[in-house]
Amino acid sequence: MPQTALRDQVEIDLGDRSYPILIAADLLGELDAFDAAPSASTALIVTNTTVAPLYATALKATLAKRYHRVETLVLPDGEVHKDWPTLNLIFDALLGHGADRKTVLFALGGGVVGDMTGFAAASYMRGVPFVQVPTTLLAQVDSSVGGKTAINHPLGKNMIGAFYQPHLVLCDLATLQTLPPRELSAGLAEVIKYGPIYDMAFFDWIEANVDALVALEPSALAHAVKRSCEIKAEVVAQDERETGLRAILNFGHTFGHAIESGLGYGEWLHGEAVGCGMVMAAHLSQKLGGVDAAFVTRLTRLIQRAGLPIVGPALGAERYLELMRIDKKSEAGEIRFVVIDQPGSAKVAAAPEAMVREVLAQCCEA
Amino acid sequence: MPQTALRDQVEIDLGDRSYPILIAADLLGELDAFDAAPSASTALIVTNTTVAPLYATALKATLAKRYHRVETLVLPDGEVHKDWPTLNLIFDALLGHGADRKTVLFALGGGVVGDMTGFAAASYMRGVPFVQVPTTLLAQVDSSVGGKTAINHPLGKNMIGAFYQPHLVLCDLATLQTLPPRELSAGLAEVIKYGPIYDMAFFDWIEANVDALVALEPSALAHAVKRSCEIKAEVVAQDERETGLRAILNFGHTFGHAIESGLGYGEWLHGEAVGCGMVMAAHLSQKLGGVDAAFVTRLTRLIQRAGLPIVGPALGAERYLELMRIDKKSEAGEIRFVVIDQPGSAKVAAAPEAMVREVLAQCCEA
Repeated sequence: MPQTALRDQVEIDLGDRSYPILIAADLLGELDAFDAAPSASTALIVTNTTVAPLYATALKATLAKRYHRVETLVLPDGEVHKDWPTLNLIFDALLGHGADRKTVLFALGGGVVGDMTGFAAASYMRGVPFVQVPTTLLAQVDSSVGGKTAINHPLGKNMIGAFYQPHLVLCDLATLQTLPPRELSAGLAEVIKYGPIYDMAFFDWIEANVDALVALEPSALAHAVKRSCEIKAEVVAQDERETGLRAILNFGHTFGHAIESGLGYGEWLHGEAVGCGMVMAAHLSQKLGGVDAAFVTRLTRLIQRAGLPIVGPALGAERYLELMRIDKKSEAGEIRFVVIDQPGSAKVAAAPEAMVREVLAQCCEA
Repeated sequence: MPQTALRDQVEIDLGDRSYPILIAADLLGELDAFDAAPSASTALIVTNTTVAPLYATALKATLAKRYHRVETLVLPDGEVHKDWPTLNLIFDALLGHGADRKTVLFALGGGVVGDMTGFAAASYMRGVPFVQVPTTLLAQVDSSVGGKTAINHPLGKNMIGAFYQPHLVLCDLATLQTLPPRELSAGLAEVIKYGPIYDMAFFDWIEANVDALVALEPSALAHAVKRSCEIKAEVVAQDERETGLRAILNFGHTFGHAIESGLGYGEWLHGEAVGCGMVMAAHLSQKLGGVDAAFVTRLTRLIQRAGLPIVGPALGAERYLELMRIDKKSEAGEIRFVVIDQPGSAKVAAAPEAMVREVLAQCCEA
C-alpha cells in the first residue's frame, strides 16, 4: 500500500499506556490506520455540528469494517459548550446505546471534542478506551496528544478532568484543508510555542515557513504536525502528570486562560488567547532576565504573521490577576508563570505582582 | 501513647499508590493518626447534614493543627444526591476557596460522601489528594477502601466515576455508635458478603457474632471491620481496576443495583439492596450448581438476622432484566453475575435468561 509508506509515526512512550500518533493525509479512510484501536462490539463517534457533515460519514464507513455497531453523537460546536451539560450528552448516548466497558469512543473534531470525549471515556464506567481523531491543527499538534482531558467550570478553564491516555491518535492531514483561517492561526499558536520553550531550530523553521503554513501548504503542515508531536511526546514521556517539566507546555497559557474566561469562553479561540498570552509571557521573561528585547520582538512578530492577536483585551489588571490566581499552577494563592529562561528553554516561576502589572499595562488595550 | 497501641492497621499494597487503613476508636481526635495525609496549606472537609453536627467539629479541630486553613462543605444526605449537581457543589467550594493542586479533601461520612468526594478529588484540576474518614459500617468495611469513586446517572448506578486511591483511610470505630439500626444492618450486608465469596471461617464468625454486631458491641465491630478490610485489601491489591478477580466483591450487587435504581435511589439503602441481592445471587448459584439448598438457606438466615430484607420488591421481571443489562459487568448485552462456585469462592458467569427469571419469581414479591 503506497500510502502507508508515507505515514509518519510518533510514539508516546508511557509504559503500558504507550500509544502511536499516525500522521498522513487521508487516514480516515484507511482501515489499517486503526489497527491500534481496541476491539469491541460497539464504537461511538463523538463529533460536533461543524465537523460531522465533513468527516463523520467517512470515519463511520471505515469503523463499520471493524466494529459490529458504530453510533455517532453530534455535539454543539464551541468552547462555550465544553461544560457538564454537554458532557452528559455523551453519557446519555452511551447508556442509551447500552454501551459496555469495552465500547471504544472516537473523538472526531478539535480540542473541545477531544477534551470532552477523553473525559467521558475516563469516567464512563470508570474508564473505557478512546481514540483521538483530531481535525484541527491545534488538536493535532497539542490537545489530542498526552492524555489531558477536561471540561471548564464557570470559574476556571479545564478545572474538572483527568489524565487519561488514548489508545491511538490519528492525524489526518487532509482534514486541515477545510480549516477556516482563524482556526488555522489558532493552531499555529501552539506550533510556535514549541520553539521558545524547547527547540529554537524548529522556531527558525517556523519563521521560514509561516507563510506556507498559513497557505495550508501540505508538506509544511506535515512537518509542523510531526515535529510538534515529537516534542510533546518527549516532554509527556518524562512527566505524564505534570509534576514538573510538562508545565512548560503551558507557555502563554496563564495569561491566555485569563483572556478566555475573562471575555467569556468562545469569544477568543483558545489558540488566539495563547498567542497573545505568549507575547505577555515573553515580556515577563524579559523582565526576569531570560531573554532580551530582540527576542520578544522576534516572537511577537512571528505570532502576528501567523494571524494571531498580539494585544490583550482590556479586562483591567485586577480582573487579570483574579483570574490568574485560579490557574492550576498557582500555589497558596501565588500565581506562577511559564517563562523562557533562555531561548529554547522554559521553567515555571513566580513573578512579583508589580512586574505582572507592568506587563499587563504594556500588552493590553487601555 | 496508649491508644496508638490499640490501633489496627491494614495496608493496601498498590505500589506507589499504597496506603494504610487505620482502625480504632476515637481516631478523629488523634493528630498522629493523620500522619499519612499529605501536607498542604488548605484542607476541605466534605460531609453531609447528618454527619456534620456529630463529627465535623472534632475533625476540623484536629486538622487545624496540621493545615493552615480548614474549610467544611456540608452536602445534603442520601443516595438521591449522589449526582452531578451535588458533586458540582464540591467544585464550587474548591474554586470559591481558591483551592490549589495540593489541597487535600477529607471525606467525612458514609459511602455517598466518600464516592463523591473521591470523584471530586480525582477530577479537580485532574487530581488532588484525598483522605477517607468513613463514619458508617458500610463505608468502613467496603466503599472507602480500594479507590472506586463515582456518581449515579439516572439510567444506572455508579456509571460515572474513576479508580482513584486515597492517601489514607481512617476508620474511627467510635462513630459507629451513633449509627441508626437500619444503617448498621446495611453495613452488615457488605460484611456478610466477604464470607461466601472468600472466607468461610469469617462467615462462621459472623454467624456466631451477628447479635453482638447488631448490638454495636465494640470488639465485635472492630474484628468485623478489620477482617473485612484485610480481605478487600487482598483482592484489590491483585486487581485494582477490576479486570478480573475484583468483580467478586460485587456479589449480590447486580440484583441489588437493579433494586436501587428500579425503586428510585434512596428508597432502599445500598446495603439493604445488596443483602436482598445476595439472596437472589445465592439462588442463582445453586441453580448453576455451585452451592446446595442448605447453603442458600444458611446465607438467607444470616442476612435476615442482620436485619436486612430477603424478599425483592415487585419491579416485574422485564424491568429487572432491563436494569441489569446496564450493569458494568455486562458485555455485548449479556448480563453477567457474581456467583458462588463453592462456599468461600466466587466467579463471574453468565446465566440463561430463563434461569434468572426463575430466581426473580422465587425471590421477589408478586
